[in-house]
Amino acid sequence: MNQNPKFAVIGGGSWATAIAKMLCVNLPEIAWYMRSESAIDHLKTQKHNPNYLSSVEFDTKKLKLTSDINEAVAYADYLIFAIPSAFLSAELSKLKVSLENKVIFSAIKGIVPETFLIVGEHFNQKFNIPFENIGVITGPCHAEEVALERLSYLTIACADAKKAKVVANILASNYIKTKISDDIIGTEYAAMLKNIYAIAAGIAHGLGYGDNFQSVIMSNAIREMKKFIRKVHKMKRNINNSAYLGDLLVTGYSVFSRNRMFGNMIGKGYTVKSAMMEMSMVAEGYYAVKSAYKLNQEYKAKTPIIDAVYQILYENKDARATFKKLTEKLD
Amino acid sequence: MNQNPKFAVIGGGSWATAIAKMLCVNLPEIAWYMRSESAIDHLKTQKHNPNYLSSVEFDTKKLKLTSDINEAVAYADYLIFAIPSAFLSAELSKLKVSLENKVIFSAIKGIVPETFLIVGEHFNQKFNIPFENIGVITGPCHAEEVALERLSYLTIACADAKKAKVVANILASNYIKTKISDDIIGTEYAAMLKNIYAIAAGIAHGLGYGDNFQSVIMSNAIREMKKFIRKVHKMKRNINNSAYLGDLLVTGYSVFSRNRMFGNMIGKGYTVKSAMMEMSMVAEGYYAVKSAYKLNQEYKAKTPIIDAVYQILYENKDARATFKKLTEKLD
Repeated sequence: MNQNPKFAVIGGGSWATAIAKMLCVNLPEIAWYMRSESAIDHLKTQKHNPNYLSSVEFDTKKLKLTSDINEAVAYADYLIFAIPSAFLSAELSKLKVSLENKVIFSAIKGIVPETFLIVGEHFNQKFNIPFENIGVITGPCHAEEVALERLSYLTIACADAKKAKVVANILASNYIKTKISDDIIGTEYAAMLKNIYAIAAGIAHGLGYGDNFQSVIMSNAIREMKKFIRKVHKMKRNINNSAYLGDLLVTGYSVFSRNRMFGNMIGKGYTVKSAMMEMSMVAEGYYAVKSAYKLNQEYKAKTPIIDAVYQILYENKDARATFKKLTEKLD
Repeated sequence: MNQNPKFAVIGGGSWATAIAKMLCVNLPEIAWYMRSESAIDHLKTQKHNPNYLSSVEFDTKKLKLTSDINEAVAYADYLIFAIPSAFLSAELSKLKVSLENKVIFSAIKGIVPETFLIVGEHFNQKFNIPFENIGVITGPCHAEEVALERLSYLTIACADAKKAKVVANILASNYIKTKISDDIIGTEYAAMLKNIYAIAAGIAHGLGYGDNFQSVIMSNAIREMKKFIRKVHKMKRNINNSAYLGDLLVTGYSVFSRNRMFGNMIGKGYTVKSAMMEMSMVAEGYYAVKSAYKLNQEYKAKTPIIDAVYQILYENKDARATFKKLTEKLD
C-alpha cells in the first residue's frame, strides 16, 4: 500500500459531500464518484454540489470527479462508500475493477436489502474482502453541521487499528475530532438502528407526546439497542460512547434528522406513501426497520420499539393505538 | 401507619404544584404547605397557584392549605419535600412537630448547601430518620408537562419497597406511569448532577456549538455521571434507566429546562449575576456544581464537564476558552 494512500468517495448525497469536504482539508486530491453527470458539471463550474450541502465550496483542482465508479475505484487505495444502502448493490454491479487490496470504509447507515447484511458483512461475504480491510465511519454527525464547520466527533472503526488510524488522521481537522474503535459490527448496527429509534421519536412527537416521554423513549432505545447488538456480536463495548448513544441522540433529537421528520409525519397522520412523497430524501430507517425486524426473528432480542415501528410502517397498524400499547412496555 | 396514609406536599413551586396535582387524582385530601399566604389565598379563591403552573385547576375541597409547615407535618404520614435545596434548612428550622415515624420523600434535586449532603442523607444524619423511611421521587419529568397531562414516567426509590409502592400507586394515573427502585442515593445524585450537565449543554449552545457536539456532551455526561455515582455509592444499577439517563436527557435537551437556559445565557456572554437576575427561577445546577465539585475533591472521579462548569461559574474562567479545553477531553 501507498505511503500516502489515495482516497475515493462513492456517492453524491449530503453525507458523501460532507466526507469529500473533510478529506479535502488534509489531502491534495481525491476521487469522487457520483451518478449524476449534471451534478458533476455543476460542481466543476460552480464549485459546489447543486443538490446537497450547496453552501460548501470546493477547491475543484483537488477533485477527480467521475460518473464512472470504475475510475474512482481504480484510482484509490481507500474507498469510502456513502450512498443509501438500498442503492449499494446496483452500484456495485457496475464494477469491472477488482476490489482486491482495496480498503473499504462504509459511511452507509443501513442494511443491504438484497442480502440482509450490514455493509461490512456484505463486502466480506459477497466480495471476499477480508475484515481487516473493512471499516466504518460513524457519527454522531449531521452532514449539515460539517458544512457549517461545527465541531463534530467521528468514530473510525476497523479490525486493523493501523487502517483506522490512517482514516482518523486524514478526517481530523480543526472542526472534526476522531477516535478509533475495533467494533465495526457494533458501530454499524448502531448507526442503522438509531434511524429506527429516530422514526419512533418522530412518531411520538407527531402524536403529541412531550419531552418527558421523548426522554423515556431514548432511554429505552439505548437499552434495546444494547440488547440487539449484543445478540448480533457479543464483545465488550460501552454503549454510551459517542458512536452508539451519541449517534442515537443526535438523530433522535435533531431537527436535521430525516428519519425523525418522517416519523413525525406518520404520527401526524400521513400515510407511509404520502410521507415518503413529501420528503425528497430517503429515510433510511424505513428500510432499516424491516431488516432489523426480520433479523430479530432469529436473534429474539426484546425490541418493543422496533416492533412498534415495524407494525406501523409495514403492517398498517394505527400509530396511536400501537404507541399506546408501546407505552406499557417502556419504563 | 395508617392503612390509607395521609400525604403532605412541602413547597409552593412548579414541581410541588405538579406533585399536588398528581396526588389529587387518587387521594380524597392532601395537606399542602407553602410559605406565601397570598398564594394560598389565591389558590383558595381562584383554584390555581398564581405563580407556578397557573393553568392547573385544583379541586380546592381536597386541599388543606397552610402556611405553617408544622400543620402540614402533623397532618401527614408521608411528607413530600419539593422546595429548592438551598431553602431546606431554613424551612426545617421552623419544625416543632417531630419527624419520627414520618415517611419522607424528596422531590428535591440538589444538595443541602449547609451540610453538603443530598436530601436523603441530610434527613438521615441530621434528623435520625432511618433510611427505610426515606425515599426519592425522580423523573424524567418536567412539571410543565404534568400540567399539560402529557404522559410521563416517574421512578420512586426507597429502601423499603413497600413504601415505594405506596407512593408509586398513589402517583400513578392515566398520564403518569411509575416504577420503583431501591437506589435512593444513586437516583438522587443523578437528579442533582443532571442539572450541571444541562448547564453545560446550555453553555455549549450559547457558544454556538451545534447538535453534533450536544450529543457528544450528553454521551460523555452519562459516562461521567456513572463514574461519579459509583464512587459515592457502589451498587448494581443500569445508568441508562429513565431515572438516570432519561432524567439527564429531558433536562439537557428540553426548552423547559431552567438550567439549560441559565447555561445558554452564560455561553452567550451574560455574567453569572446578570443571568441569575434575568431568570425569575433558581437554576439548581448553579448550587449543585459547587457541591459536586467539592465532593469530588474526595471521590476523585474523572469529571471534566463538572470541572469546566465549576470553573466558569465560580472561578470566573472564560466560557469559550474553558469549553475549547473541554472539547479535547471528550470523545
